Amino acid sequence: MIYLDNAATTQLNNEIKKTINKLYDDYFMNADSPYYPALKINNLQVQARGKLANLLNVKSEELIFTSSGSEANNMAIKGIAFKYLNKNKHIITSITEHSSVYEAMKQLETFGFEITYLKPNKHGHIENKDILATIKDNTILISIMKINSEIGAINNLEDIYDEIKKIKRNIIIHIDFVQALGKYDIELNKCDLASFSAHKINGVKGSGLLYKKNNVTILPLICGGQQEFHLRAGTSNYYYNIVFPKTLRLYLEKRNKSNDFIKTRFLYLQDLLRSDKRIKVNSSRENNSYHIINFSIPNYKSEVILNALEEANIYLSTKAACSSNVKRSRVIDSLPIDDALKNSAFRVSLSLETTNEEIDSFFNSLINILNQIKTI
Amino acid sequence: MIYLDNAATTQLNNEIKKTINKLYDDYFMNADSPYYPALKINNLQVQARGKLANLLNVKSEELIFTSSGSEANNMAIKGIAFKYLNKNKHIITSITEHSSVYEAMKQLETFGFEITYLKPNKHGHIENKDILATIKDNTILISIMKINSEIGAINNLEDIYDEIKKIKRNIIIHIDFVQALGKYDIELNKCDLASFSAHKINGVKGSGLLYKKNNVTILPLICGGQQEFHLRAGTSNYYYNIVFPKTLRLYLEKRNKSNDFIKTRFLYLQDLLRSDKRIKVNSSRENNSYHIINFSIPNYKSEVILNALEEANIYLSTKAACSSNVKRSRVIDSLPIDDALKNSAFRVSLSLETTNEEIDSFFNSLINILNQIKTI
Repeated sequence: MIYLDNAATTQLNNEIKKTINKLYDDYFMNADSPYYPALKINNLQVQARGKLANLLNVKSEELIFTSSGSEANNMAIKGIAFKYLNKNKHIITSITEHSSVYEAMKQLETFGFEITYLKPNKHGHIENKDILATIKDNTILISIMKINSEIGAINNLEDIYDEIKKIKRNIIIHIDFVQALGKYDIELNKCDLASFSAHKINGVKGSGLLYKKNNVTILPLICGGQQEFHLRAGTSNYYYNIVFPKTLRLYLEKRNKSNDFIKTRFLYLQDLLRSDKRIKVNSSRENNSYHIINFSIPNYKSEVILNALEEANIYLSTKAACSSNVKRSRVIDSLPIDDALKNSAFRVSLSLETTNEEIDSFFNSLINILNQIKTI
Repeated sequence: MIYLDNAATTQLNNEIKKTINKLYDDYFMNADSPYYPALKINNLQVQARGKLANLLNVKSEELIFTSSGSEANNMAIKGIAFKYLNKNKHIITSITEHSSVYEAMKQLETFGFEITYLKPNKHGHIENKDILATIKDNTILISIMKINSEIGAINNLEDIYDEIKKIKRNIIIHIDFVQALGKYDIELNKCDLASFSAHKINGVKGSGLLYKKNNVTILPLICGGQQEFHLRAGTSNYYYNIVFPKTLRLYLEKRNKSNDFIKTRFLYLQDLLRSDKRIKVNSSRENNSYHIINFSIPNYKSEVILNALEEANIYLSTKAACSSNVKRSRVIDSLPIDDALKNSAFRVSLSLETTNEEIDSFFNSLINILNQIKTI
């Protein structure tokens, strides 16, 4: 099997699986119970939060465990917005955001918020000058993802953090780092809220994280018990929370060993795809994550290509799994490119383990398929 | 170890642990990806939902997987309330609800909702006549738990479902079944929304469920992808979702084998506690769950007793783990009983495996402790 859909999700690290199993065997009590064996569990969770804080260079109490990146995104955005309910406030985001940001914004519109959805350039980037030009007197929140999950475009909202705060100190900056975690070094001092997910870095599904700068206050999405500093209620799924730092640490260790290779491999795949004139690469060679390449093959039916690749045991996708029900990708649809390209987009997303041989094998299969099937 | 805090959480069933491990080994793809191996995973989740629907006697599409009972409670309550924002609507609940209901209501107050918090009788029951007397023209939602998590009182909101709907057809009835699932047969046709959790029935922590009657619409709490009928976004934690029906089935099988014993054991513990005049049992002998007994020991320091029990390797609590940070329990505080009793409450909660020998051992230890320590 050649799995090239690592932006959708990744294989669970075997070490993490083993650690979770050990935790399942050793602990079952509620981490908030008042007796010693439960306090011990709670302490493991406190330690895990501390280790994550070290890895992300923030304070322990700035990290809130959630059940997913989608939950972290909703918690960040609505957590800020709902403080300004009935005040017709303005929020800036982009049309290329993950569905959990985009749909949260759509919901906020029904509550009277005014949302500006910025459009990307042809490589999927949201430009900082567009963000700055859109700020209004009543802007309360700017939410832009770090790495686009469908095209790989890298945005740099952090670069204008100081400038935005100078314009209006109480504008809150949220960055969805779900696709960026582990892939690139992350600077959380230049944002107020940030979202993460474990399953994109060989961790478990059902495990997310919200960074919230100490001086930022949000309304909780899930109200209730005292868990997560009173910000996210529910009996702790400490098995998953405790392994999050290990998940990130193992991923970073692996990545650091192969940093050069990751870049070379990305450019190698770019060159392969660009070498065939039937294929048009949508992802830029620059300012694009090394793990995502989006390309179009107009004049061929995408489903036929996907099916033929699947028969060859090669798995990729046309868009984000969280939008798998819609016909055409909102992200690709928003690019200033030809309709024919929009209708025929594919996403290849690499893991740290993807080899050049796998890339060759994928590319050769793709070319064989194109040579065999009919054009539209 | 004698663990008597099963209302806080339960031991993970070994069979469930094994099944989850098998799933970890066999599957890693995103359940929403478009290729066959992912569709197979999605299908396992569809089947799991169907099996749960059979066990609960509802339709598959009426069940939404969540990450906890707290999330399900928030989703139900805010999912209804937010449809009526800015209309100053009225909601009925009780002061004895779980913190995830109570704090969600407190948050809704800040949004302009009027909340009536009904008070319990001395055994912790919320009386249906009080609910009926409180309904107003603008009441939109009634949320009352089935079994109180601290005293065990059984409420019967279902009994007046038809009567309420006759008064006003669009009042929505939500029941928090977290403590009731598996313990008692549940009739979901007499409510519109219902919340459940897996970890109270030997399942995993981080796994909840919301029942939503087909004709009821709610606003999603976590917006985003198409997962869970567009009502709860985020990459599916299908490992946990898939084992939920097995968790419930195994629990029900075990319970059905020991139905008589569970009742006898409850009354046996009641009688033991009532036999010592220093102890005052707060839970009723009738209309109380057989797995929870709340009692008070005035004139002694509760912490001293708890610590001494812990030294004897016996674990119980004074209140819900989700309120472990507050000094005195809100639930017990709301009972029309003496202050001395409120300050000295304990909760024993039994599992299906708790033996009479364990109960004897607990009771003997307790009496020994009381004979040794000083009164206040």
